[in-house]
Amino acid sequence: MGELLGVAVLGAGHMGADHIRRLDRVVSGARVAAVGDPDPARAKEAVAGVDGVSVHTETEAALDAPGVEAVLIASPGPAHEEALLAAFARGLPVLCEKPMVPESARALRVVEAEARLGRRLAQIGFMRRYDAEYLRLKSLLDSGRLGRPLMLHCVHRNVSSPPGFTSAMLVNSSVAHEIDAARWLLGQELTAVTALRPRPSGNAPEGLLDPQFVLFETGGGALVDVEVFVNCGFGYQVRCEAVCEAGSARIGEAHSMVVTAEGGAREEVPQDYLVRFADAYDREVQAWVDATRRGRVTGPSAWDGYAASAVAEAGVRALQSGGRTAVEFAPCPELYPQAAG
Amino acid sequence: MGELLGVAVLGAGHMGADHIRRLDRVVSGARVAAVGDPDPARAKEAVAGVDGVSVHTETEAALDAPGVEAVLIASPGPAHEEALLAAFARGLPVLCEKPMVPESARALRVVEAEARLGRRLAQIGFMRRYDAEYLRLKSLLDSGRLGRPLMLHCVHRNVSSPPGFTSAMLVNSSVAHEIDAARWLLGQELTAVTALRPRPSGNAPEGLLDPQFVLFETGGGALVDVEVFVNCGFGYQVRCEAVCEAGSARIGEAHSMVVTAEGGAREEVPQDYLVRFADAYDREVQAWVDATRRGRVTGPSAWDGYAASAVAEAGVRALQSGGRTAVEFAPCPELYPQAAG
Amino acid sequence: MGELLGVAVLGAGHMGADHIRRLDRVVSGARVAAVGDPDPARAKEAVAGVDGVSVHTETEAALDAPGVEAVLIASPGPAHEEALLAAFARGLPVLCEKPMVPESARALRVVEAEARLGRRLAQIGFMRRYDAEYLRLKSLLDSGRLGRPLMLHCVHRNVSSPPGFTSAMLVNSSVAHEIDAARWLLGQELTAVTALRPRPSGNAPEGLLDPQFVLFETGGGALVDVEVFVNCGFGYQVRCEAVCEAGSARIGEAHSMVVTAEGGAREEVPQDYLVRFADAYDREVQAWVDATRRGRVTGPSAWDGYAASAVAEAGVRALQSGGRTAVEFAPCPELYPQAAG
Amino acid sequence: MGELLGVAVLGAGHMGADHIRRLDRVVSGARVAAVGDPDPARAKEAVAGVDGVSVHTETEAALDAPGVEAVLIASPGPAHEEALLAAFARGLPVLCEKPMVPESARALRVVEAEARLGRRLAQIGFMRRYDAEYLRLKSLLDSGRLGRPLMLHCVHRNVSSPPGFTSAMLVNSSVAHEIDAARWLLGQELTAVTALRPRPSGNAPEGLLDPQFVLFETGGGALVDVEVFVNCGFGYQVRCEAVCEAGSARIGEAHSMVVTAEGGAREEVPQDYLVRFADAYDREVQAWVDATRRGRVTGPSAWDGYAASAVAEAGVRALQSGGRTAVEFAPCPELYPQAAG
Repeated sequence: MGELLGVAVLGAGHMGADHIRRLDRVVSGARVAAVGDPDPARAKEAVAGVDGVSVHTETEAALDAPGVEAVLIASPGPAHEEALLAAFARGLPVLCEKPMVPESARALRVVEAEARLGRRLAQIGFMRRYDAEYLRLKSLLDSGRLGRPLMLHCVHRNVSSPPGFTSAMLVNSSVAHEIDAARWLLGQELTAVTALRPRPSGNAPEGLLDPQFVLFETGGGALVDVEVFVNCGFGYQVRCEAVCEAGSARIGEAHSMVVTAEGGAREEVPQDYLVRFADAYDREVQAWVDATRRGRVTGPSAWDGYAASAVAEAGVRALQSGGRTAVEFAPCPELYPQAAG
Repeated sequence: MGELLGVAVLGAGHMGADHIRRLDRVVSGARVAAVGDPDPARAKEAVAGVDGVSVHTETEAALDAPGVEAVLIASPGPAHEEALLAAFARGLPVLCEKPMVPESARALRVVEAEARLGRRLAQIGFMRRYDAEYLRLKSLLDSGRLGRPLMLHCVHRNVSSPPGFTSAMLVNSSVAHEIDAARWLLGQELTAVTALRPRPSGNAPEGLLDPQFVLFETGGGALVDVEVFVNCGFGYQVRCEAVCEAGSARIGEAHSMVVTAEGGAREEVPQDYLVRFADAYDREVQAWVDATRRGRVTGPSAWDGYAASAVAEAGVRALQSGGRTAVEFAPCPELYPQAAG
Repeated sequence: MGELLGVAVLGAGHMGADHIRRLDRVVSGARVAAVGDPDPARAKEAVAGVDGVSVHTETEAALDAPGVEAVLIASPGPAHEEALLAAFARGLPVLCEKPMVPESARALRVVEAEARLGRRLAQIGFMRRYDAEYLRLKSLLDSGRLGRPLMLHCVHRNVSSPPGFTSAMLVNSSVAHEIDAARWLLGQELTAVTALRPRPSGNAPEGLLDPQFVLFETGGGALVDVEVFVNCGFGYQVRCEAVCEAGSARIGEAHSMVVTAEGGAREEVPQDYLVRFADAYDREVQAWVDATRRGRVTGPSAWDGYAASAVAEAGVRALQSGGRTAVEFAPCPELYPQAAG
Repeated sequence: MGELLGVAVLGAGHMGADHIRRLDRVVSGARVAAVGDPDPARAKEAVAGVDGVSVHTETEAALDAPGVEAVLIASPGPAHEEALLAAFARGLPVLCEKPMVPESARALRVVEAEARLGRRLAQIGFMRRYDAEYLRLKSLLDSGRLGRPLMLHCVHRNVSSPPGFTSAMLVNSSVAHEIDAARWLLGQELTAVTALRPRPSGNAPEGLLDPQFVLFETGGGALVDVEVFVNCGFGYQVRCEAVCEAGSARIGEAHSMVVTAEGGAREEVPQDYLVRFADAYDREVQAWVDATRRGRVTGPSAWDGYAASAVAEAGVRALQSGGRTAVEFAPCPELYPQAAG
């Protein structure tokens, strides 16, 4: 394919450092050309052993560094809007980690900016769309073999929540993944949401509503229910069952080795999303690099990033009110293909 | 154990004939002493090959027949109230198929009649309490090993609905099983219900709201969700996952033989509840016979029968209104141990 | 069906006591009429709570006791020959626990005695033929759906071996079950055997060759391999995979509840054959009672008992010699349908 | 990491073309610098869209082409010896597809040539060592958690055999993978082999002994049995169960999506080894590129390639003789760490 794609990575924290490693050593056809992070020590640590990379404390300097042809945004969410607009201003293709922008009103500004350009530059980091199991499920649903999807039953469990995790974050950070996955799998918009709050687990931090059970209605009349439980204790578990007119399909219970010992047959559950979705991240970045080198923009769009924010915000309101809450969307610019339902 | 228990079976239809066969040839310690059914030809056909059984067209005559020491009610639901009261009047122990009595107001009259006797005579036919998988789940939950139960995710699917099946019957006939199972597994009362209606499957008869998704709240703050889908097409499937503070347990996905052929590994799904719960019915009747011969009454009580009716009626109202509906219960007589929550 | 079948149970040890309980409280249509055991205290303990049963120290006295119409032999193996011949002399139908008779030469005498009677009286206790999983596998193989069976891969594991268990007993006591199951599943005779001895597990008692790997060739050119491991430590596990021309079918990995906790999804393994095959024992005895009450004899025959002994003896010789050993059979009396291969 | 590793690929057939694609678009840090294939049209087709690659009809020319720093041999087996020796002569690191060299006597010449160099240059393409499931099993066995391995039960099934596939090839081509996997998993040499030949499947081509059942003994007293069935019809299936002193571990039954429809729950079986082991091939080549760029040689060695040939040859003799055959090995040069057993 010729020359390696020069990428500026913004953010050298946990996620950014992982993407630097991935671009340098895992994906084919790319190289890290520049890294931008307000903390120069952290940036330098993240690029140890990487050749030909310049380090910057300012976003603009990183984007303007020699050899930069594309941008991967892995900085904290509040910094995304400015970074996206700066990339747009330079015509640089960009892969932006989720959430695209934390508030839907500001997410809409990004959508409008890209719409004004008249062409897509941004791919949003909903990596589940690149997971082998989700891809098989998507392919099966699209084949029509099982008829129309009627319901999705989803489970999203984490071992334990990080410090500072709030009840709203169960919806707008954790369930955000199911929001995008449901929109994508069904090809329908989520139009209303109800959030139920069972009595919290004794293992959840004081005051955290954990678990929650969130129900979405879709434009096509399907139902999506999500158990989100971020202090389940036993592992990281993401499951999805699509119930269709002629059958059901389940993912998220894959196993690779069964050990029979001590009175039982046991399969390990991964403990971390970076383990469960390691291949999905690799495929996501590879797909972005491949498309970018071909001058194309594919994958989840800025509109998908905005829509996920809008639905999640309605979900947080539903959690607070205890009632059913309709989701309100801005008009979708012509640049983006709208969901079917 | 000595003499065989003489049983009068009321109703010689599909279910009654199956119970006659079971009492005659499967369970130990009982014999069919009398059969009552308005249709004498049907009754005679059901007792072909059974020795020492008298056939009657009137309930009272069947109960008063020689050798009758206990009653198994398998007649249609509307006939149950009269039969139960007749058995109570004679002091006869009784096993009554579900629903105990179709309307909760009338079910309450049965409860009050038994309460006036001051001792239990009735066991209600919630056979899932005798299923090996449910018993393992119940035993695990009671052990406390997984902590407090937070949610039950339930699935109840039938191949296709019989003629005349109504949208309300998805709740008060199908989900009725989950209502009792949830009360029993959790040891908590169901206090409110919400019913969601996704767009019906194209395979459901015109006008039938199928599938439905019904949510119960419990007195102890747990959540019980039930997918009921009576025209799923592929099999009879009853699943239950109990999500607890320290882990989750799932039943209903048992398999006994995996066949790998034609590009896939396949496990058969039973097509019928009589197949799936064959052993549970056998155990239920054996347990009733054993207890009765020892002069005891165990298993689900008339109060459980009433409570299931009361919750199901609230469910039907919730289905019609589209909103959350609280369940109202009469005071529980002292005869019955009340649920914890 | 009329009167209960009066059964004399010979042997009131672990197995005999279990069968007494089964006849008294589980199966339909039978009662324990007499018990014979050299130890009267043990016999009395085993019949506590059973009505109308006489206790005897002599086999003949038990068989001649009032009400005895059939015999269940659960005494130690060396006592079987005499008990079978005594039952034959009285024309009593008999269910005889395995091994029918420990030595094939003496087993042949039982076969010849029954052949002289000109009608079958004996059913041998190979209970796997009544296990739901084995029955499904047998039914699939007989259907021809998967074509001709080419190989059976079998696993037979116990938690630990009882005191006094010898290397030969791995073949003639444990593998004896697979010998019968293979003959029955395939409808073919086992004609040669090779036994391999991997280096024993450190958890096996000193001097015990455990595990072993035993290979049988059949008259029809199929291969049957059996891992037998009686000190596997983790549970009682019996698996069988039939590899056929058009697919493979596996049994023995059934599960009924999956618990996800502490980093893994876990299914319990039964610890004991009485747990794993509890239903098979119940069905076996019920089938014997039902057939006997109808004046019929079904199930594994005395010839099957003899053949299992003959194959097992060849297996022990193969174990000792380290080489391939042909199995030699006496001519099969006309009374018995011979295996196909 | 700096400059891309320039690789010469020898052989532009099915496997070679796949490796060219992999080096160009999947793995990180490498580029295809030259391709050698006697058929220039085939070579050109394989490099369509790849920049900066020269095409050659002679092996030596390809190795001497500008930018070549390492060699990947994917030509037919008989051409491997010459290619390996040519790479050794130039001091080029090499990844050689299996079989390293078809005959063990010639394989030994490669081993000796590398031993004379005094340092390793060759990695042999036993890709199972890079499969995620095998790696988990290896890691578990090495941990000692389950005690000493006693037996490996292996299954190797293909949908159908290609034209010209012979009975010997079931051993020296198909089982060759299990030979290497067993040596690696156990860290023991295979010292004797017995091959059993059940009556062939009616779906196997006339004259092909398919399936076969091959048994290996190891230096440490373990047993390895392999069912090889190359016309199983239903899919490509590779399974391995390691039976250890304290438990058993199974791989090869992974699933990613369960579809319940039409009366059964079904998981697809891959149809092809390139699907089943796609990730393993990617990891293998990435590991080779990474090590080579660091100046290291890792993975299966030329000695492993020789040993697999020696064992497979004994297996073919065992198949022909019907008896147990000891494996004979040349002395292992000091360059290679010898297997434990």
